[in-house]
Amino acid sequence: MSRVYNFSAGPSMLPEWVLKKAASEMIEYGQSGQSVMEMSHRSAEYQAIIDDCEARLRRVMNIGDNYKVLFLQGGASLQFTMIPMNLLKNGHADVINTGQWSKKAIKELNKLGKANVLASSEDKTFSYIPDVTKLDFHEDADYVYICENNTIYGTKYKTLPDTKDIPLVADLSSCILSEPIDVSKYGLIFAGAQKNMGPAGLTVVIIREDLIGNAKEQTPSMLNYQIMADNGSMFNTPPTYAIYMCDLVLQWIEEEIGGLEAMKQRNEQKAKLLYDYLDNSKMFSNPVNPQDRSLMNVTFVSGDAELDAKFIKEAKANGFINVKGHRSVGGMRASIYNAMPIEGVEKLVAFMEAFEKANQ
Amino acid sequence: MSRVYNFSAGPSMLPEWVLKKAASEMIEYGQSGQSVMEMSHRSAEYQAIIDDCEARLRRVMNIGDNYKVLFLQGGASLQFTMIPMNLLKNGHADVINTGQWSKKAIKELNKLGKANVLASSEDKTFSYIPDVTKLDFHEDADYVYICENNTIYGTKYKTLPDTKDIPLVADLSSCILSEPIDVSKYGLIFAGAQKNMGPAGLTVVIIREDLIGNAKEQTPSMLNYQIMADNGSMFNTPPTYAIYMCDLVLQWIEEEIGGLEAMKQRNEQKAKLLYDYLDNSKMFSNPVNPQDRSLMNVTFVSGDAELDAKFIKEAKANGFINVKGHRSVGGMRASIYNAMPIEGVEKLVAFMEAFEKANQ
Repeated sequence: MSRVYNFSAGPSMLPEWVLKKAASEMIEYGQSGQSVMEMSHRSAEYQAIIDDCEARLRRVMNIGDNYKVLFLQGGASLQFTMIPMNLLKNGHADVINTGQWSKKAIKELNKLGKANVLASSEDKTFSYIPDVTKLDFHEDADYVYICENNTIYGTKYKTLPDTKDIPLVADLSSCILSEPIDVSKYGLIFAGAQKNMGPAGLTVVIIREDLIGNAKEQTPSMLNYQIMADNGSMFNTPPTYAIYMCDLVLQWIEEEIGGLEAMKQRNEQKAKLLYDYLDNSKMFSNPVNPQDRSLMNVTFVSGDAELDAKFIKEAKANGFINVKGHRSVGGMRASIYNAMPIEGVEKLVAFMEAFEKANQ
Repeated sequence: MSRVYNFSAGPSMLPEWVLKKAASEMIEYGQSGQSVMEMSHRSAEYQAIIDDCEARLRRVMNIGDNYKVLFLQGGASLQFTMIPMNLLKNGHADVINTGQWSKKAIKELNKLGKANVLASSEDKTFSYIPDVTKLDFHEDADYVYICENNTIYGTKYKTLPDTKDIPLVADLSSCILSEPIDVSKYGLIFAGAQKNMGPAGLTVVIIREDLIGNAKEQTPSMLNYQIMADNGSMFNTPPTYAIYMCDLVLQWIEEEIGGLEAMKQRNEQKAKLLYDYLDNSKMFSNPVNPQDRSLMNVTFVSGDAELDAKFIKEAKANGFINVKGHRSVGGMRASIYNAMPIEGVEKLVAFMEAFEKANQ
């Protein structure tokens, strides 16, 4: 069959440009006589790939020299542990709770210190982002933690909390590389790669240098940012192929799309198509506070569970897969990450219009 | 150029059969309309792949039903922390020190409890395996730890220590799937995938069920075997593509090689070619105690550092790459994992003979 439009929350679509390049290089990378997967991570050939990946990420995101870029494993979920292990000095951090992924981070933080939850949108099923302009951060909080884009609910911070001298730590798993950001506003950014960066199994951490080196002596080596930074992410064997795929995705962003400003325009265009349709639909609606809408994850409901199920089934039959909402909230969700082409969204909207007409 | 013979200690060669299949399925897996890399880990399509991988591993290794198979991240190095976090009850374990990887395991274990080093081969640069028949294990040791094949030195346990009721925990990173083993002799087996199982970024843990569930309550979720087991290795997004590649490698072992008995014969044939040559060479010798020789990593030296360097350089120019020994021991090392074809070893031996003749 032809390729489907995959609206999965992650892992999700990769650019066909990237997949074709990876397929063509699978058996032999360049003139190396080997697949990237077979390369010793200590070889000059592989060092060139990881260096290219880091250099591209620094260019694309405009990352300052006072930040380290780490290529790690274990997903956002392991960062929920590594962050407090490395950043806690006074033993507590301020957290804003905007959904299941914040809650998981809070749970793991509370095993190692204390999470002070300053604000939460749980009262309305996380359908909005709390007003961050009115928060009083604890002066001695070791960091302020946010999940910037909430995959399950389709919300996103449009304004970052002004944490002054307290480092801002942010989970960007589902919005990294979707638009330009000012990295200097953050102390630490992390992201699982499997949405906008590449395959699952790679976690990227961008950390301000002054936040490195504070882990307790007994911290396991694999969980110590200092050791990872000192060894250029090669304290042990890194996920070599996933890093190569990330490098290809970054090539695509730089050379095919034209960088993050162009990516943002493309993403805004895609999201607008869906939100405009939803705002005018008599069947479907988006449950999110309009100013907090995510560019990446568009949630919608019909208000009728049976109709939702019918929609999901027929969408799949028509080549629009994984539009089912997260089991904790139900309804539908179209994740339209960077790799989703505009035609995919246009065709989904056309399908939704036809479905609405047929099921009035 | 044509494909090289890659003698890297890992990541290393993958079977061409596997790489060709992966290349052909990169853009679309079967009739799914998507790459495996793009699949939601919660989809039926992906569940079928991880289930197939586990079922094949259980068949190939003859793993009993009282063992769980976990697909994790972080390599052997993260297991050095997870094992004590999950298995320590009395706070100490007995360890046999056979090299750098045992020492790293000891270091991490000592952060969480105490390693009792019962025997070591450090006195002779780890060129042998200590006699394990004469060890007195501590009755209340939580486990006995070994690194079964020592990649750097080219040694391997031919007899396992008889630990009676104490669980035997073994790092099989560089020998798993190289020959049949009796899994029931172990409490826990672990292996980074990047030598005999697939690409870097996947760690396989085979753990007897009674060893699961002993972690302290405050153990980070990602480091708790119980949570990983209860969620079928999907507490968070697993390294989906690496698991698929491991499944292809297992297909190759089952369908192309004919299982681990056939694999063992093939590996013995390859190792014999090299050791026989080394034992008769006037230039090169293998520094390992003959009965402790590894089937997977064959170390050799000329005794002359300049000649070693010349050999490594000329070998590379002739398509035999990564034959340089580990920086901690010098000399040469040919890692001849499962995927190294017999012709690769035959040609290396022929090259060594010619080199010896030319440099008498």
